[in-house]
Amino acid sequence: MMKIALIGFGVVGQGLTEILRNKSKELVQAGFRGELVAVATRSRGSLYHPDGLDPELLLAAIQRGHLDYYPDVYGLYRNWDTLTLIKQCNADVLVETSNTNLETAQPALDYCYAAIEHHMHVVLANKGPVAVAYAELQRRAKAAAVKLRFEATVMAGTPSIRLAMQALKGCEIREAQGILNGTTNFILTQMEGGLGYEEALAQAQALGYAEADPTADVDGWDAAGKVMILARALFNSTITLKDMEVQGISQISAADVKAAQEAGEKWKLIARVTPTSGSVHPVRVPLSNPLAAVSGAMNAITYNTDLLGDVTLVGAGAGRLQTGFGLLSDLLDIAGVGALS
Amino acid sequence: MMKIALIGFGVVGQGLTEILRNKSKELVQAGFRGELVAVATRSRGSLYHPDGLDPELLLAAIQRGHLDYYPDVYGLYRNWDTLTLIKQCNADVLVETSNTNLETAQPALDYCYAAIEHHMHVVLANKGPVAVAYAELQRRAKAAAVKLRFEATVMAGTPSIRLAMQALKGCEIREAQGILNGTTNFILTQMEGGLGYEEALAQAQALGYAEADPTADVDGWDAAGKVMILARALFNSTITLKDMEVQGISQISAADVKAAQEAGEKWKLIARVTPTSGSVHPVRVPLSNPLAAVSGAMNAITYNTDLLGDVTLVGAGAGRLQTGFGLLSDLLDIAGVGALS
Repeated sequence: MMKIALIGFGVVGQGLTEILRNKSKELVQAGFRGELVAVATRSRGSLYHPDGLDPELLLAAIQRGHLDYYPDVYGLYRNWDTLTLIKQCNADVLVETSNTNLETAQPALDYCYAAIEHHMHVVLANKGPVAVAYAELQRRAKAAAVKLRFEATVMAGTPSIRLAMQALKGCEIREAQGILNGTTNFILTQMEGGLGYEEALAQAQALGYAEADPTADVDGWDAAGKVMILARALFNSTITLKDMEVQGISQISAADVKAAQEAGEKWKLIARVTPTSGSVHPVRVPLSNPLAAVSGAMNAITYNTDLLGDVTLVGAGAGRLQTGFGLLSDLLDIAGVGALS
Repeated sequence: MMKIALIGFGVVGQGLTEILRNKSKELVQAGFRGELVAVATRSRGSLYHPDGLDPELLLAAIQRGHLDYYPDVYGLYRNWDTLTLIKQCNADVLVETSNTNLETAQPALDYCYAAIEHHMHVVLANKGPVAVAYAELQRRAKAAAVKLRFEATVMAGTPSIRLAMQALKGCEIREAQGILNGTTNFILTQMEGGLGYEEALAQAQALGYAEADPTADVDGWDAAGKVMILARALFNSTITLKDMEVQGISQISAADVKAAQEAGEKWKLIARVTPTSGSVHPVRVPLSNPLAAVSGAMNAITYNTDLLGDVTLVGAGAGRLQTGFGLLSDLLDIAGVGALS
């Protein structure tokens, strides 16, 4: 039985919990037994039960707004602070889904370090720790003989990391470029349908794709965080935000979109990574490029390789179950259930 | 050291041999040591050396037209028949790259059975044995505690099988549809550029994409073989060619192509697999479908899943190094070098 401590219980953490609830039978059949023993949030309480928490009751409690609504059970501990929880709980894996901070990666980075120190594997949906401290995390994880996994940080659960680091093993990857932010791709797609930038942004906000403050998405910082992660995972690069050219889509006008369409092209916010560089900027992509066909909130990545040429993966880049699956696939891998049969 | 017996020494077998020669240093660094100990062809001789054959000399010999041109070395055996070679050689893995026969799968199927009986893993680029006898091969492989791998049978080395069976583990795949034949996709793409069907076919033949007898490609049988493989691998289905609707592209006229273009669509030869059905036929695909953007000899597959929605992989569907890499990736997996680090 893999005991899981979950940090953050927003959309992504709830997505994983839902999957663990809905798929428990299939997962056991596949050889995976996992249970949540601890859940910690910043402002909605925390819970720990050494014998496991009930996914259904967790979801019901958070639905009502606070983990305090989880029913009393013999052996249940409530509202420990997160670091204490990590140090005291008997989990095998820490799953980190709290908010991304691309500058300090805190407080999540300290949570990861504490987990590794207590010989827990670490699985992240939070981009901060991987973007900011990949090398140090890997060093500590290796020293403690635990695993560091982060499939959900790039393209949700669409297996972009696994494709590069596992399925393409034996190929040399020379470059990756992709559409790694769904909000901006949705806005650009709506603009092709005739909307202006402001209208398209408002629609993205109404649909829940874009935050009230859309800066991180539309100015390219979310995609830049993913560039940092890919740079580290693919090339052991230490590129930082300061080394990168990062440009968003707020300068793209309806006229720009129309001009591209007339030339048989599409504006896409392209994130690009090479062994020595990283960038995010809007590019006019010809229709013959598979990335041109990626519409709405979908994401895609193209790996340029020595033996296979270009390999492109297109799929969801966000979403409750989609990102939850990214976490699950890392848990399956750690449990040794990920191999081909 | 993994000792490899290679059946068939055409484009694909030579591609693998080239990779083993060119990448030996990187492969050793990655933890993989493999060497060819036996190579068998139908009409160009066979070689066996218990201590290994030299990739460079093998390629030089076949370049001159026959393995008899391989230099004499102490301990070298020549021109054993293929079954004797498999039974007598001390290989750990059989790599089967001879020509596909979708009806009997022979003689390759007997080679696979002999290899399994002698406790060799089996890696296939040949579609026949997987399409015709997947269940029996798996049964025998399990009983002999060896592995059966066939990444190179669908989309060359583009990891279509690995994506479905490994990276998407935990998702339920409900359906797969794709462009699984490069020749027909090349012809359709050229027709969009204004060529008639016959001209486009002639161009495909001139470029080496299509055989002198193009029936297997243009009538959909090559794609149908891949449908059979996917049906077995994804759904444990036993669907046969007779159960499938298979239609090729030879009925598509220049006028059809033009009508689709005017409607903002593209003709694609779509192979489709569900748990209970399989088919190959030309479909008018809207430009919003990622498959519409797959041009020329490229291939693509879309898996429809419960947790991630649609996941599409686009990449090479043929080629010397591309297919050679498919074989290599299976060898790496068998050697245990395929895992995430």
